[in-house]
Amino acid sequence: MAEEQQQRTDVGELGEFALIDHLTKNFETHNASTLLGIGDDAAVLESLGSQTVVSTDMLVEGVHFDLTYLPLKHLGYKSVVVNLSDIFAMNAEPTQITFSMALSNRFSVEALEELYDGVNLACQEYGVDLIGGDTTSSQSGLIISITAIGEVHESGYVGRDGAQENDLICVSGDLGGAYMGLLLMEREKKIFNENPAIQPDLEGNEYIMKRLMKPEARKDIITWLNEQKIQATSMMDISDGLSSELFHITTKSNVGCTIYEEKIPIHLDTKQMAMDLQMASVTAALNGGEDYELLFTIPQGDYEKITMSEEISVIGHITKAEDGRKLISNSGNEMPLEAQGWNPLKK
Amino acid sequence: MAEEQQQRTDVGELGEFALIDHLTKNFETHNASTLLGIGDDAAVLESLGSQTVVSTDMLVEGVHFDLTYLPLKHLGYKSVVVNLSDIFAMNAEPTQITFSMALSNRFSVEALEELYDGVNLACQEYGVDLIGGDTTSSQSGLIISITAIGEVHESGYVGRDGAQENDLICVSGDLGGAYMGLLLMEREKKIFNENPAIQPDLEGNEYIMKRLMKPEARKDIITWLNEQKIQATSMMDISDGLSSELFHITTKSNVGCTIYEEKIPIHLDTKQMAMDLQMASVTAALNGGEDYELLFTIPQGDYEKITMSEEISVIGHITKAEDGRKLISNSGNEMPLEAQGWNPLKK
Repeated sequence: MAEEQQQRTDVGELGEFALIDHLTKNFETHNASTLLGIGDDAAVLESLGSQTVVSTDMLVEGVHFDLTYLPLKHLGYKSVVVNLSDIFAMNAEPTQITFSMALSNRFSVEALEELYDGVNLACQEYGVDLIGGDTTSSQSGLIISITAIGEVHESGYVGRDGAQENDLICVSGDLGGAYMGLLLMEREKKIFNENPAIQPDLEGNEYIMKRLMKPEARKDIITWLNEQKIQATSMMDISDGLSSELFHITTKSNVGCTIYEEKIPIHLDTKQMAMDLQMASVTAALNGGEDYELLFTIPQGDYEKITMSEEISVIGHITKAEDGRKLISNSGNEMPLEAQGWNPLKK
Repeated sequence: MAEEQQQRTDVGELGEFALIDHLTKNFETHNASTLLGIGDDAAVLESLGSQTVVSTDMLVEGVHFDLTYLPLKHLGYKSVVVNLSDIFAMNAEPTQITFSMALSNRFSVEALEELYDGVNLACQEYGVDLIGGDTTSSQSGLIISITAIGEVHESGYVGRDGAQENDLICVSGDLGGAYMGLLLMEREKKIFNENPAIQPDLEGNEYIMKRLMKPEARKDIITWLNEQKIQATSMMDISDGLSSELFHITTKSNVGCTIYEEKIPIHLDTKQMAMDLQMASVTAALNGGEDYELLFTIPQGDYEKITMSEEISVIGHITKAEDGRKLISNSGNEMPLEAQGWNPLKK
C-alpha cells in the first residue's frame, strides 16, 4: 500500500525548469485556442481573435516568504503583484486573479483580514478583479497560489523566443535592490533573535526595504512602450536575477548576448548596502531576485525612442548564439555570464 | 517584528464559505469582462460575446489525500478531474488547466513522473491542455493547486442562483460510493498498520474503490442536456455531499426544497458496504463527499425529456424559501435537511 520507488532521482538535481520540461514532454495540445503553452511568463489563449494570458504562482511560507519580517498585508500585496508582473511581461493587461490558500490553525480570521487587505489593495492599484479561489487547511504554515488572467495589447503578445541578433537589451528601473533588502532584513532578524531588546535599525534603507517588501509590477513601462509603438521582440520579468532571465531569453531565442556592467542600473542605496556587506552590487543585480523589473529586447532602430524614457536602460545587445553570453566588466574584461538564479528545489 | 494579533477568531468557527464571504466583502469589480465572481463552481468572464469559466482548487496531503492508499498516478488524475467537474457544472467545456505543486524532498523525479502520468491521462480523456504551472518546494508533504479554464456552451452558463419554485431537482449517477470507498480504505489501512502481513481485502468492492480513487467528471451529462435542449436553471457538482450542495443552491436561489430518500440513487455496492459498516447508506449520500456527480434543477416541463436518461434521477422539487429544506424518509417522515458537508478548516 506504500509508494513504490525503484529508482530515485532527486528533483534538486534537475532544477525547476528542467524538471517541468521532463515531466511535460509527453503532453499534447488538444484545443485550437491554446496558442502558447508551458515555458513563458504566462500561457496565451486565443478566442475570436482576442488573446488572453494566464499565469500562476505558488508561494510557500519558509521558502518564499518569512512572516517574521514580511507583514501579512505586504505578503498579500506582493503575492498579487508578482503574478501581475508575469502578465505585463507578456505585453498584456491583467484583468482577473484567483487567490487560493492553505493555512495552519495558527492563522486567525484577523490575520487573514490583513492578508486580504493587501490583496485588495493590489487589486485596486492595478484594476484587477478577484474572481475566485480555494481556502483549505495545511499541516504547516501558509501556502498561497494565485492565477492571474490578462488581455494582450493590440500589438500582440511578446514571448521569450523572439530576440534577434543586434537587438538592444533593455531593463526597466534598477536591479539588486530587493536582494540587498533581503540581506538587510536577515541581518536584523539575526540580531533581533540574539537580543530581542535591540530593535531593527532600518533607517536610511527605506528604498531597498520597499523593493523587497512592496514591489510593484511595471504597468507603466508596458503602457509607455505601447504608446510609443515600440515593439519588443522578447520580454520577461526579472524575478530570479538578470543572469538567469538572460539565459531564458537567449536559450529560447537561440541567440547570444553581450551586456556591460557599467550599464546595469543599480540604485545608490543598493550600492551602499552592498558596500556595507562587502559584496559587489553587480552580483546582486545579476543573481539576486525579486526586483520584478522588465527585461526586453528591441530592434536597434528604436534606440532613439527608448532613450526618451528615464525608466529604461539599454544594457547590451543580442549576438549570434555561437558568441555565447558575455558580461563586459567596468575594467573592460570579458567574462562569461553565469545563471545562478534561485532554484526553489535545491536543498 | 512579529505578527501582531490583538483579537483572535479561529477560522474553523466561520467555515470556508463564511470566511471567504467575510474576507472578500470589500472587494470591488473593475473590469466589464468579469461577469460572475466569487461564489459559484467557477467564475465567468465575457469577452466579445463568448463566455469563459475559471475554477481553482488546492489539494493538500494529509487533508485531501493520503498517499498510503492513493497512488500518485491516481492523485494526478483525480486532482485534474475534480477541477474539470467544476467547469462542467457551469454548463461549460474545459479547455485548459494549469498545474502547480509544492513538494518536500521525499518526492523523487520518478514519483513525479507517475503523478504527471495521471495528469496527462486526465488531459487526454477530457481533451484538455496543460498550459502552465509552478513547481516549488514545501516544508512538509505535497500541495497541488490547479486552475481550470473552459468555454461555456451556447445555452449560457448555469449558476447556483436560478432555481425556481416547482423546478425538479435532479442528480446524475449515484451517490455515497466515494465515501464508502474512503471508509473501506481507512479500515484496511488500520488493519495493515496493525499487522503489515495482512494484505488489504478489497475484493467485491471495486465499484466503491473506483468511486474514491478514479472519479470521473460528468461531461456526458452536460453533452446530453445540451443535445436535448434541456436548460438547467441551477447546477453544481457534488463534492461535499448532497445536503451541503442543496444548501448552496437553495440559499443562492432563495428557495426551499423537498427531496425523497427513496429517490436518492445509491449503488448496490454502496448499500452493501454501508450495511457491513452498520450505517445508513443515505447518510453517505447526504453527507459523504467526492462523488463528483451533478446536482441541477430543471423546469417541470422537461420531466418527460429527463426520464429518457438512465443516468439522471429526479429526487425532489424546489419549494418556497419559507417551506425550508426537507427530506421525506422511506417511512414517510418529514425531516429537516442538515448541511453536514465537509469543512476543510474544522479541526
